[in-house]
Amino acid sequence: MNFDLNTLDAEDPLASLQQEFLQPEGVIYLDGNSLGMMPLSAQKRIREVTEQQWGRDLISSWNKHQWIDLPVTVGERIARLIGAAPGQTVCCDSISVNLFKLLAAALSMQKGRNKVVSTRDNFPTDLYMVQGLEDLLGEARCKLQLVDEHLLAEAIDDETAVLLVTEVNFRTGRKLDIEALTQKAHQHGALVVVDLAHSAGVLPVALDAWQVDFAVGCTYKYLNGGPGAPAFAYVASRHQKAMQQPLYGWMGHASGFDFNAIYQPANNAQQLLVGTPPIIAMSAVDAALDVYDQVSMAQIRQKSMQMTEVFLALLSTSPHCAELRCISPESPDQRGSQLSFEFEHAWGLCQALIKSKVIADFRAPNFIRFGFAPLYNSYRQLGTAVAIIEQIMADKSYLNAEFQRKNKVT
Amino acid sequence: MNFDLNTLDAEDPLASLQQEFLQPEGVIYLDGNSLGMMPLSAQKRIREVTEQQWGRDLISSWNKHQWIDLPVTVGERIARLIGAAPGQTVCCDSISVNLFKLLAAALSMQKGRNKVVSTRDNFPTDLYMVQGLEDLLGEARCKLQLVDEHLLAEAIDDETAVLLVTEVNFRTGRKLDIEALTQKAHQHGALVVVDLAHSAGVLPVALDAWQVDFAVGCTYKYLNGGPGAPAFAYVASRHQKAMQQPLYGWMGHASGFDFNAIYQPANNAQQLLVGTPPIIAMSAVDAALDVYDQVSMAQIRQKSMQMTEVFLALLSTSPHCAELRCISPESPDQRGSQLSFEFEHAWGLCQALIKSKVIADFRAPNFIRFGFAPLYNSYRQLGTAVAIIEQIMADKSYLNAEFQRKNKVT
Repeated sequence: MNFDLNTLDAEDPLASLQQEFLQPEGVIYLDGNSLGMMPLSAQKRIREVTEQQWGRDLISSWNKHQWIDLPVTVGERIARLIGAAPGQTVCCDSISVNLFKLLAAALSMQKGRNKVVSTRDNFPTDLYMVQGLEDLLGEARCKLQLVDEHLLAEAIDDETAVLLVTEVNFRTGRKLDIEALTQKAHQHGALVVVDLAHSAGVLPVALDAWQVDFAVGCTYKYLNGGPGAPAFAYVASRHQKAMQQPLYGWMGHASGFDFNAIYQPANNAQQLLVGTPPIIAMSAVDAALDVYDQVSMAQIRQKSMQMTEVFLALLSTSPHCAELRCISPESPDQRGSQLSFEFEHAWGLCQALIKSKVIADFRAPNFIRFGFAPLYNSYRQLGTAVAIIEQIMADKSYLNAEFQRKNKVT
Repeated sequence: MNFDLNTLDAEDPLASLQQEFLQPEGVIYLDGNSLGMMPLSAQKRIREVTEQQWGRDLISSWNKHQWIDLPVTVGERIARLIGAAPGQTVCCDSISVNLFKLLAAALSMQKGRNKVVSTRDNFPTDLYMVQGLEDLLGEARCKLQLVDEHLLAEAIDDETAVLLVTEVNFRTGRKLDIEALTQKAHQHGALVVVDLAHSAGVLPVALDAWQVDFAVGCTYKYLNGGPGAPAFAYVASRHQKAMQQPLYGWMGHASGFDFNAIYQPANNAQQLLVGTPPIIAMSAVDAALDVYDQVSMAQIRQKSMQMTEVFLALLSTSPHCAELRCISPESPDQRGSQLSFEFEHAWGLCQALIKSKVIADFRAPNFIRFGFAPLYNSYRQLGTAVAIIEQIMADKSYLNAEFQRKNKVT
């Protein structure tokens, strides 16, 4: 691979977007797959929502500033990024809570089947939600079957009620073929719940075209919605009449503000809503999405793949870095927007990097992850990051006592 | 009742707290029971969390600014206001979602009993959550029994699995005797889930002393945490080993950051946590609680009762206001911090008041509610509000076309 970082930056059609984020002085942030950087639009909006809308307009803001519509308006803006036609996506709750709703809804549509097939190394909260349903409903109605990722397609059979799959593996960055898996699942009469945590905003997802049944995703990673920002949930139009999600809340009622004692679900995706929406957080997500009006998912994907290739190429030139074993797939089209490396001293390396203002993250037991955010990372940053990694690998400063593991959150 | 509003304000020990809130020019805000005013501390904190913590410190803030501890630290600050010893209260999700967790947990501890007893005019989302569980688990495990509020105690019997009760009725403001109801429930082997939406921050709740089993509550009303701010949930220590709430999420795991595939609940109140906490919103709640460091719940209650008495006394001097039929209990110690009136033209009256910058709210079919927030309302404001109500009742401007019902959110 032959390239010049300055040229890549100069020719990057997304380069101008970097200035729409708060870029802390000297920091190279390769952790957008964990928490996205702050868009200046979100900062501005949070201030507006706080000081004007909450502070001065108070309760009238539910109508005056369309607070009540946010779960739907924000949901629809996300829908455009994940290949979903209108009327199927809402913004609400956390991924975990949304998974519970959709898994329960899917299972209730699959009378006589109890098997939820998923991968052993799926993100744990996804698997926990199935286990929660298993304990609540009994194994006759819900039974988790864990398989190795490469055996997932084979594991789907005529007893499968639900396939629960995350498009991009949070540890390895491997991207699965959701379209093919969905097709296989449907051939066997199974329904598909897809987790887009590491996809939304960085991969060109096509939920409708792939015929996915249900999906959830995260807004605080590549969508830059803010720490712990509300998640989203998608239910295909064809299921909206038959489905029944069990968290009956007043926001999911067909006419919640009539305050009837008897629940009547909205007959559209709004039935996925539960409690009062978190306005400040959801407004931040809304504003964070503005940057997507200026760019296509194809452009983002193109830069993302190129960044991972450039990063690997730079690393490969350094003998000191040979000990970092890349566990992400070799081919960029089989990866999400991250690269993960196995290394005995991954924790110490991660800490040493942070001290040098290169932010990556650690995942147990011994992985270091680098996330690439096409909206705010530059190619030159990759060059600097690799130079610093090389220095740390060369002088083995990852062994320094100050970088030994002690923190609670990794 | 004989009083002078200026004297009441001059002698009000809480008067100085009014300046700790953003008080929009000329507005008399009697809707703190719907959305609390913005504490300046919350405004400041939101700016800090946004611009410094998210914007500059990014992912490191989970440790550096103790983001990861917020559900517990905020929960414990709320605990002090609701009579809960440490280790039983967390801040998370919405009231609705928390009700689902606690109702399911309570039912799972009551093998052989299925009956959930509640009041017909409880807040709808509370009842919906039971209905959701009924449809999910089947009537053999969950069956909602609705009774009139005054018949609630009698309805508890040896078949009752769970008593679901809201301390203060959202329409009428009537306050129930939670201690007596809990005692009755326990005599019959039932568990109690209490909704403190209209209690927390304005009534001296004593969950531990009353032997309540489970509770939920809201932080965006009297606690002033911001629109749609995260709720809280309480589980008595004695139930923390036996209980099992079905929303298994990674934040409720005994060691979530080990990323194990198998769920193992924390053996304390943290098992109620589910997904990643909403940091900006939860930080706002944290800051909003600062004002409670300067004041006792007894002082707040005393002022709250006096405000409702003063408001009623002022109204009673006006013949024009005779048509407003107070549906809240006569005795202040049987009320929460609101007064509700039935009036054929309640909607128009509410709109006319808003136009005159007196903010109250409407509840279907024909109620107008006034909430009294001892932290930021003054006695003089009550005088002005009543004078404006009197004027509108006298000139019948509530009939004006501009005040006819058309808005979506009421």
